Amino acid sequence: MKNEKIPYKIYLNEDEMPKAWYNLRADMKQKPAPLLNPGTLQPMKAEELSGVFCEELIAQELDDQTAFFEIPEEIRNFYKMYRPSPLVRAYCLEEKLHTPAKIYYKFEGNNTSGSHKLNSAIAQAYYAKKQGLTGVTTETGAGQWGTALSMACSYFGLDCKVYMVKCSYEQKPFRREVMRTYGASVTPSPSMETEVGRKILAEHPGTTGSLGCAISEAVEKAVSSGGYRYVLGSVLNQVLLHQSVIGLETKAALDKYQVKPDIIIGCAGGGSNLGGLIAPFMGEKLRGEADYRIVAVEPASCPSFTRGVYAYDFCDTGMVCPLAKMYTLGSGFIPSANHAGGLRYHGMSSTLSELYHQGLMEAVSVKQTEVFEAAEYFARIEGILPAPESSHAIRVAIDEAVRCKETGEEKTIVFGLTGTGYFDMVAYEKFHDGEMNDYIPTDEELAVYRDKLPKVQ
Amino acid sequence: MKNEKIPYKIYLNEDEMPKAWYNLRADMKQKPAPLLNPGTLQPMKAEELSGVFCEELIAQELDDQTAFFEIPEEIRNFYKMYRPSPLVRAYCLEEKLHTPAKIYYKFEGNNTSGSHKLNSAIAQAYYAKKQGLTGVTTETGAGQWGTALSMACSYFGLDCKVYMVKCSYEQKPFRREVMRTYGASVTPSPSMETEVGRKILAEHPGTTGSLGCAISEAVEKAVSSGGYRYVLGSVLNQVLLHQSVIGLETKAALDKYQVKPDIIIGCAGGGSNLGGLIAPFMGEKLRGEADYRIVAVEPASCPSFTRGVYAYDFCDTGMVCPLAKMYTLGSGFIPSANHAGGLRYHGMSSTLSELYHQGLMEAVSVKQTEVFEAAEYFARIEGILPAPESSHAIRVAIDEAVRCKETGEEKTIVFGLTGTGYFDMVAYEKFHDGEMNDYIPTDEELAVYRDKLPKVQ
Repeated sequence: MKNEKIPYKIYLNEDEMPKAWYNLRADMKQKPAPLLNPGTLQPMKAEELSGVFCEELIAQELDDQTAFFEIPEEIRNFYKMYRPSPLVRAYCLEEKLHTPAKIYYKFEGNNTSGSHKLNSAIAQAYYAKKQGLTGVTTETGAGQWGTALSMACSYFGLDCKVYMVKCSYEQKPFRREVMRTYGASVTPSPSMETEVGRKILAEHPGTTGSLGCAISEAVEKAVSSGGYRYVLGSVLNQVLLHQSVIGLETKAALDKYQVKPDIIIGCAGGGSNLGGLIAPFMGEKLRGEADYRIVAVEPASCPSFTRGVYAYDFCDTGMVCPLAKMYTLGSGFIPSANHAGGLRYHGMSSTLSELYHQGLMEAVSVKQTEVFEAAEYFARIEGILPAPESSHAIRVAIDEAVRCKETGEEKTIVFGLTGTGYFDMVAYEKFHDGEMNDYIPTDEELAVYRDKLPKVQ
Repeated sequence: MKNEKIPYKIYLNEDEMPKAWYNLRADMKQKPAPLLNPGTLQPMKAEELSGVFCEELIAQELDDQTAFFEIPEEIRNFYKMYRPSPLVRAYCLEEKLHTPAKIYYKFEGNNTSGSHKLNSAIAQAYYAKKQGLTGVTTETGAGQWGTALSMACSYFGLDCKVYMVKCSYEQKPFRREVMRTYGASVTPSPSMETEVGRKILAEHPGTTGSLGCAISEAVEKAVSSGGYRYVLGSVLNQVLLHQSVIGLETKAALDKYQVKPDIIIGCAGGGSNLGGLIAPFMGEKLRGEADYRIVAVEPASCPSFTRGVYAYDFCDTGMVCPLAKMYTLGSGFIPSANHAGGLRYHGMSSTLSELYHQGLMEAVSVKQTEVFEAAEYFARIEGILPAPESSHAIRVAIDEAVRCKETGEEKTIVFGLTGTGYFDMVAYEKFHDGEMNDYIPTDEELAVYRDKLPKVQ
């Protein structure tokens, strides 16, 4: 098919949807470093993880050889309720920018969780159900992951226990209410339900909680309750595996119209969206079949790729999880209170970290007011009100398209639009009211947390 | 194509999208009664309406002869950004209900306005722009219409002035913020900006506003500002015309798979969604080409079809608009404060009223707790968190499917899922917390407003 006939939105047919997830690690010569047991500093074995995680998910987590994992039929049927997601040709944006660039975005926001998180949530719930578990526990900050997991658990009849960072719980009652609609129990963290929660509350009676604390509570609850396991929505290899459905659909849609992208852009917090979006493209790059510029975009206020170090670190602030080798700012790092753009994880997926370390992808950081400017500009032209996270990718896609205008290059740009901003209007309001600043951590501040990294190397 | 091959979601190709709107009135032998000038009680002429409404929209409003109006290319291009909307086969719901019925829903919620309102907003903005206007004014209650209009105006570079009922403005800051993101100015009503607003504030200093008051302010602002007109999101014939895109797409998708519906169900407030959804089906019925059961669903707390009278009444509480003949509860009627399900308009589209009067469609009313039960049930099974309005149709679709289970009939049910409930979580919370009741107005209460109907007949 010729370029002229490309529709505004490319939807694959159901029979063109991926039947297997793609495991990027299988094509990496230098594999990501293994998770380490923080006590022994030895690679984590499946049996060490099985008290916390579901068995099949552990197998996926540790397998860096198998290129394709079949997507079980039950999951494919669930995917059909909200997938394939559209690959949108941004004709209106191109016209407004007067750019010769061709811009596409893969839109993952057309489901009630409002983001790509559902792609992995349904997989994790499926394997938990298959293992005969009663339920799962997790933490949530902004609430996207908690919402996605509650939807997935509701579908499979699993109990879902969400520890929601207390300040989010209070500031985002609507997110909480969506989770309740799907039958999840949502507890503000820290809570009196767990030992770690009670300990923290005793020490800091007025605390509004943190993601690290919520993770610790969720893990404790899973380990101490019969029939429960803990699940996580980003960072892990298994999550990147499930999210490969984004990239596989994107590539199939582009191939259908014989379009080859020049630049692929994704926002990066823990790496689940970026890792999923780029998977098949990076695979071609690793196998020497094609070349692409791949760009990770992160907030300047939480710059793990661009200003972090590549080292072993704890995955969680509470230091209860295994050690992962990754680009990290230190597990104690928390972005400035003014930061409203999401993507606040201190580290980065091990797989993406290794690829970045090998020079196979680039990373840029952007300031939050520039991100919200791009978000609003995009909303007014393309209609979709983007999530702050997604708007990091929009910012850089627009910058690249403007550069094409200057150079006259007809590049094809693909970016990931991970979700919608319907539950982020407090951040938009701050932006409109001029109450948003662009705080960037100083080198001295970053050094504080970097100096506390565990000594492993 | 055979039934077995029907996908979960039917998306038309862009070239299968409607190129003209269908004007149901053209096929009605007995036409809807005309709008009357409340002063002279004579049918409103175009010139009398032109100070308030856009010219081409007036032409569409008054034309009950032309069956098809071409959709201008600019509007079709905008439609392509979020349409065609999917016609979803509710396989999961069917399975859960163990029903032999086949259930389809046309989902209009996959756009930032969160509802079908955008279909008419973009058309009205287009004609305002074409007329060379500076901007438009409108009122909004819950905020869906205001959001849709702000998106449409942003696309065409029109100024958009929204008067938002003050209590909604305060209770729904997120809706307001979405409109601001699209560049609309949002004023809590009553305001000091208009004469009518100042008058109401002087008389009732503590009032939290009403839709009727907001309409009056929006009309005054349009009439008194050069280059502005007033636009309305439901009830009017022009709105039903634009919304016919819903039904035309639905019919095209069903025809593609040779599916003929038995029952078509839509929620009804002012009638914009229902009128759009049923348009081509009702057209066939009027021309004697096919027969369908067509069911309007309304809240038991605002039962204009089922307990109203068919009479001339004011379209607005403020009595500044023309008189329309319709099923009405009286323009002073306001649903109970506990009512959270939307669809709170006191009257009903004249076209739908006439069709109902002729016995060509049925109407049922449902209680709000039953509506929210259906909403939550649906969300957990089909994934989508529905708007309270849409959930009226879900309730009756489920009831019909259960009836099929009892009788063994393999009926095909199609219903309109007009939007998502992301901004309605306060209502869901009330439901979860058991704070929702099923207040139904007594005959005596209804008589109060009915007795105040203008004496026209």
